[in-house]
Amino acid sequence: MSRNILVIGAGKSTSYLLDYFLEKSNEEQLYLTIGDLNPESISKTVKDHKNCTVIQLDIQNEAARKKAIGESDIVVSMLPAFLHSKVAVDCLALNKHLVTASYVSDSLKDLEAEVKKKGLVFMNEIGLDPGIDHMSAMQIIDRIRHQGGKILLFESFCGGLVAPESDDNLWNYKFTWNPRNVVLAGQGGAAKFIQEGTYKYLPYHKLFRRTEFFDIEGYGRFEGYANRNSLNYREAYGLQDVLTLYRGTMRRVGFSKAWNMFVQLGMTDDSYTIENSENMSYREFTNLFLPYSPTDSVELKLRHYLKIDQDDIMWEKLLELDLLNDQKSIPLKHASPAQILQYILEKSWNLNDDDKDMIVMYHKIGYELQGHKYQIDANMVVIGENRTHTAMAKTVGLPVAIATLAILNKKISSPGVQIPIKKEVYEPILEELKSYGIYFKEYKVPYLGYNPDSVSNED
Amino acid sequence: MSRNILVIGAGKSTSYLLDYFLEKSNEEQLYLTIGDLNPESISKTVKDHKNCTVIQLDIQNEAARKKAIGESDIVVSMLPAFLHSKVAVDCLALNKHLVTASYVSDSLKDLEAEVKKKGLVFMNEIGLDPGIDHMSAMQIIDRIRHQGGKILLFESFCGGLVAPESDDNLWNYKFTWNPRNVVLAGQGGAAKFIQEGTYKYLPYHKLFRRTEFFDIEGYGRFEGYANRNSLNYREAYGLQDVLTLYRGTMRRVGFSKAWNMFVQLGMTDDSYTIENSENMSYREFTNLFLPYSPTDSVELKLRHYLKIDQDDIMWEKLLELDLLNDQKSIPLKHASPAQILQYILEKSWNLNDDDKDMIVMYHKIGYELQGHKYQIDANMVVIGENRTHTAMAKTVGLPVAIATLAILNKKISSPGVQIPIKKEVYEPILEELKSYGIYFKEYKVPYLGYNPDSVSNED
Repeated sequence: MSRNILVIGAGKSTSYLLDYFLEKSNEEQLYLTIGDLNPESISKTVKDHKNCTVIQLDIQNEAARKKAIGESDIVVSMLPAFLHSKVAVDCLALNKHLVTASYVSDSLKDLEAEVKKKGLVFMNEIGLDPGIDHMSAMQIIDRIRHQGGKILLFESFCGGLVAPESDDNLWNYKFTWNPRNVVLAGQGGAAKFIQEGTYKYLPYHKLFRRTEFFDIEGYGRFEGYANRNSLNYREAYGLQDVLTLYRGTMRRVGFSKAWNMFVQLGMTDDSYTIENSENMSYREFTNLFLPYSPTDSVELKLRHYLKIDQDDIMWEKLLELDLLNDQKSIPLKHASPAQILQYILEKSWNLNDDDKDMIVMYHKIGYELQGHKYQIDANMVVIGENRTHTAMAKTVGLPVAIATLAILNKKISSPGVQIPIKKEVYEPILEELKSYGIYFKEYKVPYLGYNPDSVSNED
Repeated sequence: MSRNILVIGAGKSTSYLLDYFLEKSNEEQLYLTIGDLNPESISKTVKDHKNCTVIQLDIQNEAARKKAIGESDIVVSMLPAFLHSKVAVDCLALNKHLVTASYVSDSLKDLEAEVKKKGLVFMNEIGLDPGIDHMSAMQIIDRIRHQGGKILLFESFCGGLVAPESDDNLWNYKFTWNPRNVVLAGQGGAAKFIQEGTYKYLPYHKLFRRTEFFDIEGYGRFEGYANRNSLNYREAYGLQDVLTLYRGTMRRVGFSKAWNMFVQLGMTDDSYTIENSENMSYREFTNLFLPYSPTDSVELKLRHYLKIDQDDIMWEKLLELDLLNDQKSIPLKHASPAQILQYILEKSWNLNDDDKDMIVMYHKIGYELQGHKYQIDANMVVIGENRTHTAMAKTVGLPVAIATLAILNKKISSPGVQIPIKKEVYEPILEELKSYGIYFKEYKVPYLGYNPDSVSNED
């Protein structure tokens, strides 16, 4: 008799996830039900598979939701994070395991005691970031601790980028995930991290001017800027005494310096709307943020404001986006600067049909063992196949899929609301991910502590 | 039989207000009751005056509050703005007029219909800014309109500064009002204004780098930076069609450029607290915002971060505040950067006993009359007497006091929740203020429209 898996939400990131279940459906006796508000967008290959049913499911429809969950053995929720909690409450009531790639919300945490009592596994943060970052970092950290080592430094960076073969713009960047999150990245307060025992705080308007560099063999150089709160997971990873704790986002070198132009202009602001935004030209939009002049050109005002020299590549980056074009216009009503910027960027930065994306992740883990200091640098690169089978969908979807099957097969069985930081969880998943080309290369490097020579801080 | 005035809240700004009532108390048959939570701080001269009673009044004590209000003929609330609404509701219920120097809150607006029906006057925003700014601007605007003119440009700036004779620090600034408001000034969103028919938006981290200059005869040059929303009062003043609308805050030239250093560092942030702030040295506080280095000095990191050349006066401004001192420490627990910065600034910028403050206000009003364009520049300078009888207390307290007596004497009688923009209100008050040395000098200047040549925009 087959086991029923219910996947709720079949968006961008689910191509590999669904393929995994269907490929294993005969040998593992799986039957897949996909519930989505707009099931039309699901591929024909998936829909027509004999071990799969697609249903139109409105998550707000309580009766339909409970019926679908009730008929399953395990639920995978790929919905936006804020919609998980209804699913979680039903799973608890109906005794179903749950897997998500999202951060553990407070409402989910509140269910912990009951989930444990019922022996259910609610596995979260088991995508890419969060997900593979937890698992790969904890594998190294646990190994060092098992040898008797003490962790001194933990830095971890991740980025969704465009693959080198499809990298054809001056920003070396295309959107491979939610563009809105990229435009708003870093907002909402100062970034906070620890370097050599000292807390450091960095305001948003300086965030993109204090980056760190990374070299990855065969892929060249990358840069990283700090996440808002690097101190998340300090307790979860057991790093209360670590000297350096720094988490961030990876881009190609030069991206952050250029992005900072938008920050300085105020174009990433999402806190107010522009009354007359509809039909405004790109040029008029740019001029909103520049001083009034009866005579000076928008070009000169922009160069002066951002201190862009005549031969500075920053200028070409702005031109590439058509920011000074007075023919192209914005179709958005009462839009915020951030929404308008996103619209303009999407015109340049969306993946073409044959573009490939790239995921990069980089950990630095410094430690002390028997009086000596060491450091391990570990990095992962995953290249996508095409616009549907992206590296993003692969690295988010496969860990979710593997975890789901492992829970069904009772290989992962410790109950509770959890994230994948236990050996029982990460070992089998990381092992299986290898066969899909998802793995880390490790390098022993000299331990220098937090090394400011690899950090850029010009303005 | 005398008229009873109840003044609630006898803080910093009330010295002139109380003196005014007491000086007029015989001739006008006034009896003054002062209710304050801490009446000890009220001066002996006031307390001992035969036409005055001081009571200890907790505004949260409903019975005591209603009793005091019930026994009065008019109530002057000098409480912090968020405490006005309880007083207003009681005044309405007990049929008492009300005068405040604060912005009209939404809860106060909601009382409008009933206040009007009962024939009561609830006069607000009748201090300095808001207050004298409304009255002096509307006097000029109404005069121009009476002549048949049409307003093209309205700019208005105000600042509380230190008088030239007490101006002895490199910042040419001392606190003469609530220091917290000075530290947080401009935060909470982009500044918004209109220049020559175009909306302009300026993010907080650029606010202090786009200033406008003003010269005042006998007092030299000042600068102004934009308030968050220059478009407030557009409707109230009838300026819906104006080409330029710009309101701001005045400082001595150079202040904004120097203040911008704190903004760039992130020291004005009030959105998070620093865990280990207690006993942190000033130097450690500064270093929180600078990149980590095992070898470089805080001095060099700070110079580099802010791009301060070796001979730049900006550096002396920072040293004057002792920001690099490793002996002086911060006594505040879990304080925000803004709270710590305020603490440090108060050590340098508080008025000495014999220091005098200075209020400056500057309006530019451009208009068209019979096919020609004109401009009136009007400015006011008021110098304080000492640390108690400040120009701030004078310019806030006297308009409140004069309005209160005018309402008692039915010279101001149009009922409703209002601000002083009607001729009936501003004419007698501005006239009487003259006898206290509070008046504007007007200059006819060429109309240039919004003139960018008087605007600094370097970075």
